[in-house]
Amino acid sequence: MSITPFIEYEDATEEVRSVYQDIMATRGSDWVNNFWKALATQPELLRRTWEGVKFVMSDGALDPLTKEMIYIAVSATNGCNYCTNSHTAGARSKGMTDEMFAELMAVVGMANQTNSLANGFQVAVDEQFKNGGRE
Amino acid sequence: MSITPFIEYEDATEEVRSVYQDIMATRGSDWVNNFWKALATQPELLRRTWEGVKFVMSDGALDPLTKEMIYIAVSATNGCNYCTNSHTAGARSKGMTDEMFAELMAVVGMANQTNSLANGFQVAVDEQFKNGGRE
Amino acid sequence: MSITPFIEYEDATEEVRSVYQDIMATRGSDWVNNFWKALATQPELLRRTWEGVKFVMSDGALDPLTKEMIYIAVSATNGCNYCTNSHTAGARSKGMTDEMFAELMAVVGMANQTNSLANGFQVAVDEQFKNGGRE
Amino acid sequence: MSITPFIEYEDATEEVRSVYQDIMATRGSDWVNNFWKALATQPELLRRTWEGVKFVMSDGALDPLTKEMIYIAVSATNGCNYCTNSHTAGARSKGMTDEMFAELMAVVGMANQTNSLANGFQVAVDEQFKNGGRE
Amino acid sequence: MSITPFIEYEDATEEVRSVYQDIMATRGSDWVNNFWKALATQPELLRRTWEGVKFVMSDGALDPLTKEMIYIAVSATNGCNYCTNSHTAGARSKGMTDEMFAELMAVVGMANQTNSLANGFQVAVDEQFKNGGRE
Amino acid sequence: MSITPFIEYEDATEEVRSVYQDIMATRGSDWVNNFWKALATQPELLRRTWEGVKFVMSDGALDPLTKEMIYIAVSATNGCNYCTNSHTAGARSKGMTDEMFAELMAVVGMANQTNSLANGFQVAVDEQFKNGGRE
Repeated sequence: MSITPFIEYEDATEEVRSVYQDIMATRGSDWVNNFWKALATQPELLRRTWEGVKFVMSDGALDPLTKEMIYIAVSATNGCNYCTNSHTAGARSKGMTDEMFAELMAVVGMANQTNSLANGFQVAVDEQFKNGGRE
Repeated sequence: MSITPFIEYEDATEEVRSVYQDIMATRGSDWVNNFWKALATQPELLRRTWEGVKFVMSDGALDPLTKEMIYIAVSATNGCNYCTNSHTAGARSKGMTDEMFAELMAVVGMANQTNSLANGFQVAVDEQFKNGGRE
Repeated sequence: MSITPFIEYEDATEEVRSVYQDIMATRGSDWVNNFWKALATQPELLRRTWEGVKFVMSDGALDPLTKEMIYIAVSATNGCNYCTNSHTAGARSKGMTDEMFAELMAVVGMANQTNSLANGFQVAVDEQFKNGGRE
Repeated sequence: MSITPFIEYEDATEEVRSVYQDIMATRGSDWVNNFWKALATQPELLRRTWEGVKFVMSDGALDPLTKEMIYIAVSATNGCNYCTNSHTAGARSKGMTDEMFAELMAVVGMANQTNSLANGFQVAVDEQFKNGGRE
Repeated sequence: MSITPFIEYEDATEEVRSVYQDIMATRGSDWVNNFWKALATQPELLRRTWEGVKFVMSDGALDPLTKEMIYIAVSATNGCNYCTNSHTAGARSKGMTDEMFAELMAVVGMANQTNSLANGFQVAVDEQFKNGGRE
Repeated sequence: MSITPFIEYEDATEEVRSVYQDIMATRGSDWVNNFWKALATQPELLRRTWEGVKFVMSDGALDPLTKEMIYIAVSATNGCNYCTNSHTAGARSKGMTDEMFAELMAVVGMANQTNSLANGFQVAVDEQFKNGGRE
């Protein structure tokens, strides 16, 4: 269920199928999750979003598991159920343990707490921290 | 500047001073940043918040640098200027390079984008992802 | 279901009924949606909120369909399921096609992405953009 | 000022310069705004983000001015100062009047109000609105 | 400074002046704050917003000071600098002490923390709490 | 249901049981709600979060009912279903009437509206309101 009908593989155009195939190949899985089936209403939106996610989540200066945990942190902060569940599944498949998840959540909770405190107290940024401590 | 006056070390009570000393000792620094000076209006709030941050950000199943980057992810999502700057400074002091920061931001941006897409399309969570993929 | 009981037309006071009638008349429909039935617990809150919505969403410098799409943009950003579904239904009844919805979502997703990037990088506003480019 | 140094055109690599040139050509302007100069720290992030914005904001089922106003709606909801100012400037350059801006804001304010009311009252989505009213 | 020019009393139309007079009379003050001067660009938006605020913030089942503190709680959560400062000033003029403010902030911080934890852990609502515990 | 398995009392360690007992004793109830059972995966996170909530929500300069309403205000603003329902139940058990809830929601809605307006118009803070009106 979603606001637009899910486009299943068998009903998809060539353009959409090629994105679906890349999703499955990249993940080594044999199915495509609902998020992409909803976006497939608009093939260009599907393709661009997938290419962005694929690029951004690949190995680089940060490893893929760290990236999944950052994704969860944002999703829990925004209260996005879909993304919290899907990226927790993704992180688990990449090795996140329950203990790591609990520590991740502890940081997320603390950050949300102190964010509201800093905003509520309207604390001015220290000279030493300006531009993230960049000299 | 903040909504409550900053409590400087020399004007602080013993209770507040001991928290300030622990902040400086834990960080190996010789100053206390504005956030804590604003909270010191209410010593109990200061002490509890500091003990929470100290515990949560220490080494565990996740290393301190990863935790700082998660903190930045939440702070950028919430648009908290103070926390974004102070935790970027913290992450840099723990070894975050500009390249790592840029990848962190790329994930944060992508997560915020797809969070709003998943919410906007009202995509139902796949069976496989329910409870974060927990069997 | 909601935190307060829904007030149905037949159980409503005159004051609430007159708001319900105006809702139905304005929309050319023969039913009242749950949102208003929940607010009817407090007739003054119901009346004021409805009058605000009615006025704000009417034709003006912006047309009603554009306004519905702006409403969806905010609701998807906030992750409000109720408002996303109800205003998408409203926008569709005013002529929004699936293609328009997909483009709307593409903009919403991009805006959420770059909002978090601008906040994360703490980018200073250009002189040329100050006050929204007002001379 | 930003967390990473701004990359000016004269100091930029060929890759970054070509993005800057495309930004200026697309907009018919002779300068590049701070947002892109901050992202240029990571040329791939710069290029991908710009290509996304360029594509998404171009004329389609929705016209560019409507898209700019949707961008403002999201940015005001998220409280992103940079994006609110820059996209208001963009919308004005495409013809948004003060009256249109005021109506836009009236819708944004109303949507934020009713979003929190729907969430606060925990209103269940009406059958008629499920999947955004899709049959 | 704001995106639209401030309308000062001496430059205002009769319609705007009468709202300004009501703002000053209601508050027993001799000046009008920037928020209203920005909204005055669109007199109808000014009048409706002021009437809403005036009604909602007046004495009722909740007293005006409690209402101001609720306003601060929302504003700190959203990170709205203007509203946090203006409503803290309002709360102080109605008797909020620094100790009350600190307790308010402690609750706001805790709520933001546990909100993200509940969302991150995707905790299902207990039967006993459904509809806010309504039988 | 949640991302981690619920730890029931009979399956809990001594450490977790003692927190559960304190939760029940503090509330005078004979059951523990899902939120704590999810956090119990990580006993230290459970214990710290509970101690924080217990301390923060107890009687002080603000009474417990006012604190529950502030909690609801934040939760409705963040769109946290779990917290909105659980703290509304908590507020009701402490004496919140439907009328008080409706007024609370009216303030929450108004604050979210004017927050987005102040951010959208980019209104500068008045001199008189700086630092929350602190001299």
